[in-house]
Amino acid sequence: MAEFTFAPLTPASFLDRAAAVFADRTAIVDGERRFTYREMSERCRRLAGALVAQGAGHQDRIAALCANSHVMLELHHAVPMTGAALVTLNTRLSEDEMAALLDHSGASVLVATREFADPARRLAGRAGLPCFVAGGPGDSYEEWIADAEASGHVPADERQLLAINYTSGTTGRPKGVMYHHRGAYLQAAAMAYHARLGPGARYLWTLPMFHCNGWCFTWAVTAAGGTHVCLRAVDTAEIWRLLRDEGITHFSAAPTVLTMIAEDPAAGSLDHEVRVDTGGAPPSATLLARMESMNFAVTHLYGLTETYGPLAINEWQPEWDELPREEQATLRARQGAPNIIARPLRVLDEEGRDVPADGETMGEIAVSGNDVMLGYYRDDEATREVTRSGCFMTGDLAVMHPDGYVEIRDRSKDIIISGGENIASVEVEGVLDSHPSVVESAVVGMPDERWGEVPVAFVTLRKQDVDAAALIQYARERLARYKVPRRFEFGELPKTSTGKIQKNILRDRAPELEESS
Amino acid sequence: MAEFTFAPLTPASFLDRAAAVFADRTAIVDGERRFTYREMSERCRRLAGALVAQGAGHQDRIAALCANSHVMLELHHAVPMTGAALVTLNTRLSEDEMAALLDHSGASVLVATREFADPARRLAGRAGLPCFVAGGPGDSYEEWIADAEASGHVPADERQLLAINYTSGTTGRPKGVMYHHRGAYLQAAAMAYHARLGPGARYLWTLPMFHCNGWCFTWAVTAAGGTHVCLRAVDTAEIWRLLRDEGITHFSAAPTVLTMIAEDPAAGSLDHEVRVDTGGAPPSATLLARMESMNFAVTHLYGLTETYGPLAINEWQPEWDELPREEQATLRARQGAPNIIARPLRVLDEEGRDVPADGETMGEIAVSGNDVMLGYYRDDEATREVTRSGCFMTGDLAVMHPDGYVEIRDRSKDIIISGGENIASVEVEGVLDSHPSVVESAVVGMPDERWGEVPVAFVTLRKQDVDAAALIQYARERLARYKVPRRFEFGELPKTSTGKIQKNILRDRAPELEESS
Repeated sequence: MAEFTFAPLTPASFLDRAAAVFADRTAIVDGERRFTYREMSERCRRLAGALVAQGAGHQDRIAALCANSHVMLELHHAVPMTGAALVTLNTRLSEDEMAALLDHSGASVLVATREFADPARRLAGRAGLPCFVAGGPGDSYEEWIADAEASGHVPADERQLLAINYTSGTTGRPKGVMYHHRGAYLQAAAMAYHARLGPGARYLWTLPMFHCNGWCFTWAVTAAGGTHVCLRAVDTAEIWRLLRDEGITHFSAAPTVLTMIAEDPAAGSLDHEVRVDTGGAPPSATLLARMESMNFAVTHLYGLTETYGPLAINEWQPEWDELPREEQATLRARQGAPNIIARPLRVLDEEGRDVPADGETMGEIAVSGNDVMLGYYRDDEATREVTRSGCFMTGDLAVMHPDGYVEIRDRSKDIIISGGENIASVEVEGVLDSHPSVVESAVVGMPDERWGEVPVAFVTLRKQDVDAAALIQYARERLARYKVPRRFEFGELPKTSTGKIQKNILRDRAPELEESS
Repeated sequence: MAEFTFAPLTPASFLDRAAAVFADRTAIVDGERRFTYREMSERCRRLAGALVAQGAGHQDRIAALCANSHVMLELHHAVPMTGAALVTLNTRLSEDEMAALLDHSGASVLVATREFADPARRLAGRAGLPCFVAGGPGDSYEEWIADAEASGHVPADERQLLAINYTSGTTGRPKGVMYHHRGAYLQAAAMAYHARLGPGARYLWTLPMFHCNGWCFTWAVTAAGGTHVCLRAVDTAEIWRLLRDEGITHFSAAPTVLTMIAEDPAAGSLDHEVRVDTGGAPPSATLLARMESMNFAVTHLYGLTETYGPLAINEWQPEWDELPREEQATLRARQGAPNIIARPLRVLDEEGRDVPADGETMGEIAVSGNDVMLGYYRDDEATREVTRSGCFMTGDLAVMHPDGYVEIRDRSKDIIISGGENIASVEVEGVLDSHPSVVESAVVGMPDERWGEVPVAFVTLRKQDVDAAALIQYARERLARYKVPRRFEFGELPKTSTGKIQKNILRDRAPELEESS
């Protein structure tokens, strides 16, 4: 068998293709700076050379503390060419948390963007690491790569370590999710396919690139020859400006971010369709209707850090367009089906058997395949804890519908058990969110002597024309009595950098609230 | 590294996904018969079981003599599940040629559709093979699979033999191009991406499935959950009926077939856009304009049997829409750029060096990567002959344009050398085809005492309002004198089953023609 028929699968190869085919197309827009694919390729090859000159080699770890920027994109394409692994730090962590991750990953270089120059320099100083800051006073990045010799090659082993993504895990020790080249390559190809990217795509970076390597869109957009439009911080007015001025065609964001976008004063109908991928929680019917009315086509995806981002997609079947809007929203709230390169999702009971596909029996989503992590870095125990029945156990409780689509009922840790009954917080939140005055809500369990737990609601209002009593009344008309929240708090919800609501904070706060009824 | 993070890449897995996600969607339309993906999956698993019961095992060869049909699709999905390899016979070959391929491949079973019942039975009798015929009197296929137990598994080695595709090679001994699972999986994903397939796709099988496994669309359409609409024989009236009645969204065909479609009396504007992939020869400006006016969006692809079909794609850059139509046609005639999973194409000179990307210097297209064949079956010598510089040498002479797009100037064997000058037959054909009265043309070299070779043209006319003298005059105004054909013949052109013009036949005929001027 001829050796030239084997090419290792690596996302690094996509930049070669883009540089060959789309050399003069705009690869990156980052504020005032724009780079073509020719320029991006040259810069990445010099960055790879600079890293090699710094001693970065096979399986070394390179840390990034970066806003969504050309620098972060350059790291995503250059680090794989060196054989090293990229460790992207969540920019919202405290300095102590970041220091712990630098230590755990054993990173040998730290690269930062100007927004994080001060903490980066302090962190590097503490850890004794070389640190390069891009932009701002004392920029050392441009000089570093300007002087470097172009380098870069394709790794020989397609399953070697590509990246370590620390879970933003709200509790417990952070876990370093290990990606390999093959997985990221296939996942990027799947994202390019499902999002219908192409050389005309202009992808807005609302999603943090440090989160699951931006669901592998960092590579997918490059594979397609599209344009990465960077957004250094989520600013909804700026998003609306870019949607209009930069002709954005695609972006990805959690439903909470979509809500912010839809509620922004600048919101309004667009003159071109924008494809939006959302995940992290199901988009509500209200949100979907608002987005659609403004010319956004929303696709619901599902995945975890452990699955390179979206492993599942709510594949929309053409006939569903004819269904009533309410029914469409119900269908779209489902997490769906494996993406084109993923293995079928399974829903397993506690004995590891597939639950019946009846849309009712709950089990845990279990996955395997090329887009599932290699394990947690230097944490075999944690890896073993999530491995069962030859699968990665996601911790998401779901049902399998008769048509093969999976629907999450709750995170196992978000289930509220009240008087022996399971209450799915998402079900209660769905009802509250359907109230016209509600922007979004989060429901958590609170310890209760009599019932074990009782549900408590945190609600952001659009209009201040309702109170707890009104929402309780509204919920009672739509839910079993035991599912109706006992306490309410109104205001902003605490969120992670990716827009996920931090229920652990709410759980701590719940007992301080007054009984509402 | 956890084992559940590795899944072998095999096109057999796409049917699993389709059966899970698109169970009730129509998988196949074949005349009056329709199958959902649930049914297709069940039938394929039973066919796999029937093959196993027949003794077909690891790396055995299963031969098919089939029209484009549900049977041929079932074989494409079932044979890979058995670990055997599929050998699809070109249905236009003579019985002796087919017998030679059955012998060379060592096939252990022959499956045929009703159109080829008689030759199949004779061939199987000669070779002592079990033979199953689907449809018509004495159908043995349905019974065979009805009784079988469902079987099928994913092969452990993703680079094991999947299919042998004998080149329709116009001269010399046929060569069995070996495909592996990994290559077909990736190529199918690339086709799904570039053709923008999806569950709403309705793919018309104008391309023979026996040719490069239908450019891997046999698997790509399944991966997307689209509908395969079978066409058992190329019949342009029937194509127009299906385009209109079956809501076809996609098909693939050589330019010669597109010309037939465009010239059909039933031709007319469609009320929905149909995406057409064409390859085998560049589409002419005239043809492109006609197709576009009827709502076909034509993409030009390039590949060979040795590259799983289209390895390159003429990636259309959005800005090109603004160019004059003539210039667009020139750009679209280029073979283009690597598809999303292919390695960059190279154009090498005789010393194996890349030619300059100047759009002028000719060299031979050289390729490598996952979508290049393993070699020729049982023919190491032939494999060695096409291997050079760590690449598969395509035999196509081309230039590399400054923007990274490849353009074929000719097949190396189709170059005409006259008075020491190279004449690219495609250049001359392009000029003749641009004449409003010409449907298509083929130019070949004819031995000549004085010049070595001289060009001779075979032309199909739309209107009988021109003669050789008029075309010579037309060509002289546009070409160097030595490139102008000396002899002309008017009439239909001989073609292969995939619509390629058989220049070897024309070369034999050329000396019989009269000098035209």
